[in-house]
Amino acid sequence: MNSFNDRFLRACRREAVDRTPIWLMRQAGRYMPEYRALREKWDLLTMCRTPELAVEVTLQPLARFDLDAAILFSDIMIPLRGMGIEFEIRENVGPVIAEPVREERDVERLRVVNPEQDVPFVLDALKMLRRELETRVPLIGFAGAPFTLASYLIEGQGARELVRTKQLMYTNPAAWHALMNKLADSIAAYLCAQVGAGAQAVQLFDSWVGALAPRDYHQFVLPYTQKIFDALKVTDVPTIHFGTGTAMLLEMMNEAGASVMGIDWRVPLSNAWARLGDVALQGNLDPVVLLTTPQVVETHARRILHDAHGRRGHIFNLGHGVLPNTPLENVERLIQVVHGD
Amino acid sequence: MNSFNDRFLRACRREAVDRTPIWLMRQAGRYMPEYRALREKWDLLTMCRTPELAVEVTLQPLARFDLDAAILFSDIMIPLRGMGIEFEIRENVGPVIAEPVREERDVERLRVVNPEQDVPFVLDALKMLRRELETRVPLIGFAGAPFTLASYLIEGQGARELVRTKQLMYTNPAAWHALMNKLADSIAAYLCAQVGAGAQAVQLFDSWVGALAPRDYHQFVLPYTQKIFDALKVTDVPTIHFGTGTAMLLEMMNEAGASVMGIDWRVPLSNAWARLGDVALQGNLDPVVLLTTPQVVETHARRILHDAHGRRGHIFNLGHGVLPNTPLENVERLIQVVHGD
Repeated sequence: MNSFNDRFLRACRREAVDRTPIWLMRQAGRYMPEYRALREKWDLLTMCRTPELAVEVTLQPLARFDLDAAILFSDIMIPLRGMGIEFEIRENVGPVIAEPVREERDVERLRVVNPEQDVPFVLDALKMLRRELETRVPLIGFAGAPFTLASYLIEGQGARELVRTKQLMYTNPAAWHALMNKLADSIAAYLCAQVGAGAQAVQLFDSWVGALAPRDYHQFVLPYTQKIFDALKVTDVPTIHFGTGTAMLLEMMNEAGASVMGIDWRVPLSNAWARLGDVALQGNLDPVVLLTTPQVVETHARRILHDAHGRRGHIFNLGHGVLPNTPLENVERLIQVVHGD
Repeated sequence: MNSFNDRFLRACRREAVDRTPIWLMRQAGRYMPEYRALREKWDLLTMCRTPELAVEVTLQPLARFDLDAAILFSDIMIPLRGMGIEFEIRENVGPVIAEPVREERDVERLRVVNPEQDVPFVLDALKMLRRELETRVPLIGFAGAPFTLASYLIEGQGARELVRTKQLMYTNPAAWHALMNKLADSIAAYLCAQVGAGAQAVQLFDSWVGALAPRDYHQFVLPYTQKIFDALKVTDVPTIHFGTGTAMLLEMMNEAGASVMGIDWRVPLSNAWARLGDVALQGNLDPVVLLTTPQVVETHARRILHDAHGRRGHIFNLGHGVLPNTPLENVERLIQVVHGD
């Protein structure tokens, strides 16, 4: 196939497609032997910061699977160094922040990201990828959302209950809003620069926002996600707004203005459409299903297709990233079933 | 006050009350110095298995706060030894199972709990507590729900994604259903025995069930929670069905037949009532709010009372257990605000 496959972009715009497009969050990752081979030589941050390596990893899943989009290989923490945040990524722990943000003066010392200066390697990788993919599939850029990034900055590392994050939000709203503002401005600039460098769609990952009560989301998060999607409107590329555990937040998240809402397995697509109306949906297979057998994968994938009911604007994906022990044959089978092969 | 305070029981039955009743999940726990003093001398399981200690801890929060109910101090793992499961409870880790359940023959070797034989200390503690509380407040018993207990038995210890649990459910439904059946029979017997020993209400904790898609809940969990609440109907005590992250499961969980639905902070009470109709609701303050200041606690508590709108059948509680670093003065303030003092 030498002609450009625009199925994913058409579905984002809720146009008719010949088959349901599919890509997978973390489609380039540890479940692939060719990825693990590279990771033996390079650490994660080096891979993200070296355009040639980021390009190579981004393309790995496309060589193996009939995916309808590529997503830049990177990490949501990458733009934060440009804000003045030092961090490392520890094996089996995730990001660890050198000096967590705990009060107003911690926020004051943060800068707003200047993408050309702070993350030229991301923009270079996107330019190279766009050339590489010109006759193949669309290229997706991404960033972490303000709440999810704030939770890492405040907790210092991944934390189940997000105690410190909520404590800051509840007891020091001035510091909270200042932090969210700088994050929103940084992410808006970062995503716009990604589009400028060739990204044909962008996804905002608000992975941990499901920890919030709806009223808190509305007051402490929505203005900032809205700001980001507003800034992206001038670019005219499709935007995807993703979170997990967001069953009670979907209507508000939708107000933020993305063209596609990403939902997890806890919310049936038919329920989301009934509530949200005319928006494209991305999802929503439980990633654990990919750790079973091709038969079980097929059953669950067909249920989701049945639930989507051929409605325009469905992009098949998981409800969260591919898990490390996922067998390749299950991914293969999933894509076949979604494409109706 | 020497007359029995039946506010909690009246609210469970959706009868008129003079003030909104309040009790807190894990109201006896590490946030109290008198609890920590006991824990320096005894480990958790010894405290659960020694009626005098369990009674002492159960009563600790009542001596300090104007709570409207007592809940037996115990652990959801306690009845499992009667099924033939060996486990320990490790500091900062939680329950660790000696031989996790992974296949049908692991399920076959499990017995159904015989409460009088397997957990006489629980029944003794309840009898002592009931005498102690006769002129004070109602006594609540509790158990872990089949899904949440199954997830510990299968994972071997707490696990974020519940990968092995879902793998067993999806790939070996026969083993899954056999396990859930034995758990449901054990928990039904255990809770009925608690009522026989003096519990005036019982709560079923399905803390991790929010990890499931609604369809999976319906197929793999609902029949077993239903079985438990059916068995409890003959006792005529109020029953409480609690879980977290259950926004999309509430209607199905309600079908299981408890008299009170426990909800977390992610679902506004008004939303739950609009969807569920005539059922009592328990909740739903985010426990992190108790880690802030008395002023913030007051604001959030008032919002919940406003959302409940004086409707009959509201029992104030947190959306999950009290966190270890909770300041006592914040608990004090919460109870005052809820009682309108």
